[in-house]
Parts: sequence; structure tokens; C-alpha cells
Amino acid sequence: MTSKLGYLGPAGSYAEQAAILYDAHAEKVPYPSIPTVAKGVEKLEVTSGLVPIENSIEGAVTYTLDLLIHDSKLLISDEIILPVHHNLLGSPGTGKEDIKLVYSHPQAFAQCRKYLEHELPGVELIASLSTSAAVKRLSEENNIAAIGNLRAAEIYNAEVIDSQIEDNSNNVTRFVLLSENDSPATGNDKTSICFTFSDDSPGLLYKVMGFAAKEGINLAKVESRPNKLELGRYFFLLDLEGHRTDQKIATTLSAINDEVSELKILGSYPQRS
Amino acid sequence: MTSKLGYLGPAGSYAEQAAILYDAHAEKVPYPSIPTVAKGVEKLEVTSGLVPIENSIEGAVTYTLDLLIHDSKLLISDEIILPVHHNLLGSPGTGKEDIKLVYSHPQAFAQCRKYLEHELPGVELIASLSTSAAVKRLSEENNIAAIGNLRAAEIYNAEVIDSQIEDNSNNVTRFVLLSENDSPATGNDKTSICFTFSDDSPGLLYKVMGFAAKEGINLAKVESRPNKLELGRYFFLLDLEGHRTDQKIATTLSAINDEVSELKILGSYPQRS
Repeated sequence: MTSKLGYLGPAGSYAEQAAILYDAHAEKVPYPSIPTVAKGVEKLEVTSGLVPIENSIEGAVTYTLDLLIHDSKLLISDEIILPVHHNLLGSPGTGKEDIKLVYSHPQAFAQCRKYLEHELPGVELIASLSTSAAVKRLSEENNIAAIGNLRAAEIYNAEVIDSQIEDNSNNVTRFVLLSENDSPATGNDKTSICFTFSDDSPGLLYKVMGFAAKEGINLAKVESRPNKLELGRYFFLLDLEGHRTDQKIATTLSAINDEVSELKILGSYPQRS
Repeated sequence: MTSKLGYLGPAGSYAEQAAILYDAHAEKVPYPSIPTVAKGVEKLEVTSGLVPIENSIEGAVTYTLDLLIHDSKLLISDEIILPVHHNLLGSPGTGKEDIKLVYSHPQAFAQCRKYLEHELPGVELIASLSTSAAVKRLSEENNIAAIGNLRAAEIYNAEVIDSQIEDNSNNVTRFVLLSENDSPATGNDKTSICFTFSDDSPGLLYKVMGFAAKEGINLAKVESRPNKLELGRYFFLLDLEGHRTDQKIATTLSAINDEVSELKILGSYPQRS
């Protein structure tokens, strides 16, 4: 039986590209938002769900971090790294001089800021819920353009006006696969955790990082998110190199658990690059 | 001569509320974006500029962090903490049942998610560049609502349909004042810095945090932002308690400077709460 893979849709999104890259054969099921991808996995409608967690230019996808911290018991079972290329798309025959409005996701605008300032100065930018929803609008309105990927252009019969319009060629998005279970050890793994303190937090973060340092564990990532209760109080997210079943990681997690008011292990999974 | 205070406009924005709270007597000058506020200060059009840096629910305002890291030599000379209350606003006479579309800034939607799901299920949400721009639309279109503050309601003659609709009552935004110079020591100050490493970074972050710990300096905040060159490489932002002219802070900054590939002191300023 082929597995079912949920993703942050609609069809034509960058997450669909990541889903195709991850498993070309799985049945792919689009969901309208990051929380609904997670709900689809929780309700067993799909085996796993793919959501973006970090972009090399824009940083953390805070919706996904907050979902993992506060709203879901799913675990990260894998990661996928996708190079991102943006394109200016229009209905067939649309020229750059015809464009009165550009639709796209705000993150795509941010990633094409220099191109837009230079090539389409003064043209109004209108936010869409996804780049794919933006491309879909091309069939509904005249004299508009959208920023999206080539898969969306194909689906919605759009023409490429300019390709690879992103300001920064090092544009890469990391997606995580959310599942009921995380992955067995492969020898080259990462473990993601988050925790908070009942007391002053950044000073205690140093102490917690010391537990990993003492065991010789490399930290691949440190993020902070507000705890949503009080300004200046945070949840911290760490990626530790190693699997939670490794002795050193297990020792570190146990030491961390004694220091924090809440520890959540978000999963161990193969480290990709 | 009264000083001129730039802020992230337009009039009716939460930043204008913060500007009024900070200095009721200063002439207030709106700018259309965070980078243009900074440019206004750099060109001496205004003495200082007020921009949001952190919200207790949504987290860091990444545009402001990236501006401080990459694109500006301005310093933080003060901070202002503003409680945020959102309201559902309509043209006079608009009832909840008439509403077909709601305009607001995406962050305001995120902060009123539960209210919107419960009170306006299925109503389309359209992103605006600011809550104030959203409220302005009420005079241009029928059967719409906007989420914004009471100052915007007053300016654009809108009616309050529901007040304090934010999901979380602990909703507070911290703004920073950007100026040519930072502030003299008051005895209760913070120093904001950012730095990056040429090598693997999160492990070295622990070492750098140790320099502060050794001097007994409390860390008020730790943030990371992508360095925009490579996935997994970061700029870290720390808030140290103390003024950069204090001996302990000066010693710490000197030790940090020897360890990192780039250190930027973003300013010392009075610590508010």
C-alpha cells in the first residue's frame, strides 16, 4: 500500500515540490494551513505531513515552531531541504508594462524585494495565503502578475515573464515531516527539543547548553519563541546532533529535564544537508 | 525646538500609539516601512525613529532585526512597551452578519485567530500592509470589516463592532527608538549586540554566553537570525543587562569580539518593563 503524504497546499506550493522530492510515489494530499496538515496526520487521514520550518533568508517559520511547542503531539520523523526559485508569472501574453498588481505570499515578496523595486517600482503588492493561490488568480483578473514556482505555472497555465527573480541565490527552505512516531537511529541523526523555565530564562539557557557541551554534543540550532504568557519569557528550541537513544543524548536530555519547567522532545530523525 | 519622531505609519498604527506614549509633544512623522523609518533618521529628517522589535505572542519582528544586523548603522537609544488591544471595526451601521471580508495585517489576524474562527467562521481574510491601512479601506468598500486600534477608528470614522478581540490578553509589543547615538548610563540599562561566526555557530554561541556568565552579567534575551548566506548559519542577538560603559560589559564585549567574525553593538539604553 502506498503511503499518503499530506503537505501545506494547495497544489503548486513549494511544499508540494518538497513532497515530490521526498517521495515521488506517495499519494499527496494538500491541506490549507500548517495546523490542518498536523490535524490530518493526527486523524490518520495521511501517514505523515510536510511543513516548512526554516528558510535560509527569512528564518524560522514561526507557525510551525508554535505548533510543535504548543499545539501538537506529532514528532519530526525526517527533514527535506529544497532550493527555492521564484518566478514572475502572468497570463499568456501579459507583458511587464501591463502589470498593475502583483500577488504572492508575503515571504516571496520579501525574498524578491530588490527585483520588485527595480523592475516593477510602485506596482502594488497584494498578499496571498500561498504563492500557488497567487498564481491561481492569474486566470481570474487581468493586468496582474504573481510570484510562484514552475509547478504552479504548469498547473494554472501561466507564462514565465522572468525566472529566478529571488534576490539571494542561497535561498533554501527546510521542511520537516510530521508523523505519529519519529525515526530509528541511522548513525547520522538530529534530535529536536524545546523547553521553558518557570524563572528567568536566557541565563538558564546557558546552563542547559552546558549539559550538551559537557557530553560533547554539537548544537545544530538554537531558536527562541515567546511563551505567549509574558514579554521576555521564552520557549527555546535546540537541535542536538545525535539520536535520542544515543547514551550521550539520553544523559543530556535527563539533565535538561531536571532544570526546566517543561521539556518536549520533538523527535529524532536523519540529518540531511 | 521640539524634536521630530519618526514612526512606522500610517497614522493610526500601533507604532503611532507607542510614539504618543513615548513623547506626546514631539512632532510625529509617519513612514511607510521599517527601512524608511531608519532612512528618515539617517537623513536627519527626524531625530529618532520608532519601530516594533518584539511582540509577546508573535515573537521577533524579523524586519527590524535584519535592519539592525545588516542594513543600518543606527543605534537603539530607548525602548517602549505598549499593551496591544485589537478591535473589530466597521463603517457606521455595519453589523457582524454583513461582513464578507476582513482586512488587517497578518499579525493581527494571527493574534485574533480564535475570535475570527468563532465569530466570523468562513469569512475571507485579506492581508493589508498595516492595521491602519486596513481600517482606511472601510470608507472605500461595503460589507467589510477591519481589525485595528481605537486611534485608527477615530481617524477613519469607524465604528467598534467588538473590542479587545485578541485571543491572548498578555499581548504587548516592544518598540525600539533608533537614533544616531545611544543613551548615557542610567544605572538600569541594557546593551543589545549581534554577532556571527565564520565557523559552526551554535556551539560557539555557548562559549560567548560563557563570557557574560563569567562576569555575572544577566542575559535578557537570545535570538537567532539566518546569516542569509547558508542554511544553518546564524547571526545571534543578545541583550546584556548593563551599559556598554560598565566595566563588566566592556570586558565581556572585548572577549566576545576576539571570538566572533563580526560583532555589532546595537546600543545601550534604559531598561523599561
